[in-house]
Parts: sequence; C-alpha cells; structure tokens
Amino acid sequence: MENQKNYSLIIIGAGPAALTASIYASRYRLDHLVIGESLGGLAFEAHKICNFPTEQEISGMEIVEKMKKHVKSLGTSLLLDKVINVEQKKEAFKILTRSGKIFLAKTLLLAVGTKRRQLNLPNESKFIGKGVSYCATCDAMFYQGKTVAVVGGSDSANTASLYLAEIAKKVYQIYRKNKLRGETAWVNQVVTNKKIEVIYNTEVIGLDGKEKLEKIILSKPYKGQTELAIDGLFIEIGTIPQKNLINKLSLETDEKGYIRVTPDQKTSHSGIWAAGDITTASNNFHQIITACSEGAIAAEDIFKFLQNSK
Amino acid sequence: MENQKNYSLIIIGAGPAALTASIYASRYRLDHLVIGESLGGLAFEAHKICNFPTEQEISGMEIVEKMKKHVKSLGTSLLLDKVINVEQKKEAFKILTRSGKIFLAKTLLLAVGTKRRQLNLPNESKFIGKGVSYCATCDAMFYQGKTVAVVGGSDSANTASLYLAEIAKKVYQIYRKNKLRGETAWVNQVVTNKKIEVIYNTEVIGLDGKEKLEKIILSKPYKGQTELAIDGLFIEIGTIPQKNLINKLSLETDEKGYIRVTPDQKTSHSGIWAAGDITTASNNFHQIITACSEGAIAAEDIFKFLQNSK
Repeated sequence: MENQKNYSLIIIGAGPAALTASIYASRYRLDHLVIGESLGGLAFEAHKICNFPTEQEISGMEIVEKMKKHVKSLGTSLLLDKVINVEQKKEAFKILTRSGKIFLAKTLLLAVGTKRRQLNLPNESKFIGKGVSYCATCDAMFYQGKTVAVVGGSDSANTASLYLAEIAKKVYQIYRKNKLRGETAWVNQVVTNKKIEVIYNTEVIGLDGKEKLEKIILSKPYKGQTELAIDGLFIEIGTIPQKNLINKLSLETDEKGYIRVTPDQKTSHSGIWAAGDITTASNNFHQIITACSEGAIAAEDIFKFLQNSK
Repeated sequence: MENQKNYSLIIIGAGPAALTASIYASRYRLDHLVIGESLGGLAFEAHKICNFPTEQEISGMEIVEKMKKHVKSLGTSLLLDKVINVEQKKEAFKILTRSGKIFLAKTLLLAVGTKRRQLNLPNESKFIGKGVSYCATCDAMFYQGKTVAVVGGSDSANTASLYLAEIAKKVYQIYRKNKLRGETAWVNQVVTNKKIEVIYNTEVIGLDGKEKLEKIILSKPYKGQTELAIDGLFIEIGTIPQKNLINKLSLETDEKGYIRVTPDQKTSHSGIWAAGDITTASNNFHQIITACSEGAIAAEDIFKFLQNSK
C-alpha cells in the first residue's frame, strides 16, 4: 500500500454529478480518478431531454457523451468498474473495486445515484428481459407493433409512454392516482396521444405468463376486466438510492435513505462528500442540471479542504 | 388594472438563472414573462468558459445565446427592460418598468444577479470609459499593443489578465494577497505567461491622468516606484448584489446583502422566490451551472405552489 499513488480525490459514480465534479476538479488541478459502474448513470437512459439549458432537445446518451468528452479533454481517467468496498485508513481511504483493483484517496465524492424501483411482485425478477423492463429507451425497440403497458405517472413514466407510442401499436399507462404529475408539457402530450390509454386509480398487482410475460393483473377492473393482455410492461415508478456504500460507511441519511449533506455537499463522514440524485440537496429535485450543480459545489469545497489541509 | 393579464409568474432578470427558470416554467406550461435589463447578465461578459458541463470551451455570449434560443423555442417572451418598482397588491404583484410598462403576476422570481464592485477611489467614475473598465471582454480591444493593469486575484481577474495578454503589450496584475486564488488551471497560466507580471500584497490607492487615465498609485513601491504608468485599468475585484428591489421589498439578506433563501429558493416574502448570484444558495458558489440549477429548483417550487393554490 505504501507504494500506491494516493489520489487527492476519487469520484465514485459516472453520472452528471460525477462528471461535472471531475471537470471542476480538473480545473482546480486536483489529481483524481472517476470510477463508475455505468457511464452516465440513469441519465444515460433518458430518451429525450428538453430542459437542460442550452440543449433544446437531446438524448441522455448524447448529453452524457458530451460530458464524458469534456472530462476526457481535461486529461482525467474514467474507469468503468464498481467500487465494492471503502475502508478508512489513517491517511487515506482505501477503495476496492469488483475487478480487484485497489486505490487510495485523501477525499471521496460519492455520486452513485439511484436505481429503478421495482413493483416487488413475486415473479417480477423471473420476467425481466422476458416482457418486464425498467428502461423504455433501452428496450422499446423489441415491441414494434405490439401492445405494452407503462406503470407510473411521473415524468419518466410519461416520457416512456410517449416514446413507446412511437413504436408500439398500443400503450396502456397505469397509475395509482387520479392525475398524472410532472411537467405539464409531457402530461398534455400523453393525454392527447391516440395510442395511449391512461388507466387511473389502478395498480398492477400480478404478472402472468409461461415463458414470457403475457398478461398483468389490475387492482380493479378496467372495462370489466382485471386481466390485461400485453407483450411488455415498463415499470417507471421512481428510484431508490444505491445503498451499498452508504451502509458500509454508516453515512447519515433521511428516512428514505438519501444521504444528508450540508450546503457544501459534505456528508456526516469527514473527508467524504456526496452529490447528485443520491443526496438530499437541491430541494430533492432530481434533475441533470441540479446534479451537475451539486458536483461543482462539492468539487470547490473539496479543493478548499485540500488547500487548507496542506 | 382589472383588464390586465395576470401572469402566473414574472421572472425578473435575464441571466442563466432566469433563463433556466423560464425553460422549466415553459415545460410546466406556466404563463410567464422574463424581464431583464441585459441579456445574460454578467455571464454574457465572460471571455471564456471551460467548466460548464457539455461545453469544453465557450464564450459567455455564445452560451447565453444558446439559452436564449432555448427559452424562445418554448414560446416565451423576453423583454429587455428594467423593473424599477414592485408593489404587493391583494391578488398580485404589480410591476413597473423603466419604459413605463405595468405587469401583474401571481408569483415573482428575482434573478437580477450582481454588479461589478468598484475600487471606490475619488476619481474612479470620471475615468470610466477613459481608461477604467470593469469588463475585459468588452473593452480589451481598445488596448492593442498597450500596457494595462488588472486588479484582483480571483478567476475573473485571472481570466481578464490572460485575455488581455493576448492583445496588450504588457499586463500587470495587482493583488492585495500573496497568492492568486480560484481555479489552479487559470492561476498556472497567469504565473507562467511572459506578458503578465503579478504584483502581490499591493493595492491600487489612486488614479491619475488629465483627460484619460495615465497612471495608478500603488499602496507600496514596486521596483522602487509607487506610480505605475498604464493605458488601461481593469477592475475585477468581485461583485455586489443588485440591491434596488431587495430594499423595496424588504427581503431578508445575509450580512453581505445576498438574499437568504430556503432550500426551495423561497425568499422571506411570500410569493417571491430568488435564484442565481443574488442568493445565498449553492454554498455561495456563484457559477453558471449553480445559477441554472437554482432557477430550475425555483421554477419547480413555484409550479407546485401555483398548483396548490388553485
């Protein structure tokens, strides 16, 4: 361990918060490394983004690619790997990745984001990739001319329905409340789209099929039936924090599991900052632009911390 | 007044915070108006921006133009005018502009930013436009092959020096502390640039010249002289909040005059939000990306407020 390089900063995650933090860290000339499981995190999967200022319409993949290029242009290494353990040593944090690599760092920025929430139905896992999906952008193309359902009523559910309506024959959107939420622009498009039928006040309580998903069971009858025959089900009911490292480091969280941070993005653990969807910052408004901002704020505070500890 | 349109929201300001708030407000289909004195605010004057994620290198003018196009593509009107008064009426805020226009709005977002801090020397105003400038991007071209000085040690002073070094013959950078601050990337470029000479631990305490600025007086001798002959002086010593509306509305501020906001960007006055450089949010880190984020957060909270008050 004595011979290993001790980075000033290791950023864990590779979404907009992590990438922006890296850009700022590079501008501060902090020797640092970005380690993330998947480039772009959940932002990568966004079909269409219309609210990132300067970009009138862009896909998640494209915006992430631009940020990645920005990071690389400043000379920073981006390692696609999963951090599976973090240990606090005397002078540094010791980081272990799934591929067996070990790194040392004086400070850490956790920006590992969130993952898709599941319905938690008994046979849900069995049907993943066989009719059940959590990413319309990734899987819509398998349903050309078919009948699909989307569960949820938020921006991600609404945009999933709209995207699927371009490809599938018919889209049911099933939502437990009586009114879709999120941006009115998306809501208006959903309710006026002829291919989309919204089923309100209803939940999906069962999945059925032999080899692959064939039908879903609704919590109350729709047009006289509680069974709905579909080819694909897209579950878009929100996200939950990636808890693995939070638990290992015993970081303070709110009741939903999001990391509590102070206005400078510090966590309850000295030397560890957090940014992006995994935190309680930005009024819990999880957007690409807010994640970027949190990454910038964290990087500036880490720079000041390292300057003062010299 | 009864016949006038009562907007859901009026955004006062036209910088990155205001423009992003407008983009979000449009996506929420809030009928709103943007009124700002100058498009882009101080961001417009930035010579080179390298830390806005997705844009490896862009001028302030270009990034503001992109945001403006984004705002306009969503159908929002942008009025270049100065709001000189705001009155709280029963059902709405009544807004008066310098050109004599009156508008009504249910909610307000203040994003009027900051203005350049002056040295406050007795004859400083006299020399504005005659050797004294607060904007290198705007005025550098008048000093081709000449000798100039920059006052300050922050990112804006450093980037001003670097830009001026491309045009002028010689650049003195005068800073009251013993080490430049801000991004190390800029600091390194300044201290290694052969045209730039940094004078540390020194202040500019006097200005002298007949028709136009001819020399400055230093607080202590540099190379044996307290007088330094220059053609132009660029003052880059930070910013102060635009106080006019803050005072009129008696908004709560911190000791420096920045508007105190809660995490949802609400001010102390019901129905009024604030975003961007004029607030205490984002850990007081005034960046384009943080201003944009604050605008987005404010717009979402205003949308929820208006939904709940229906």
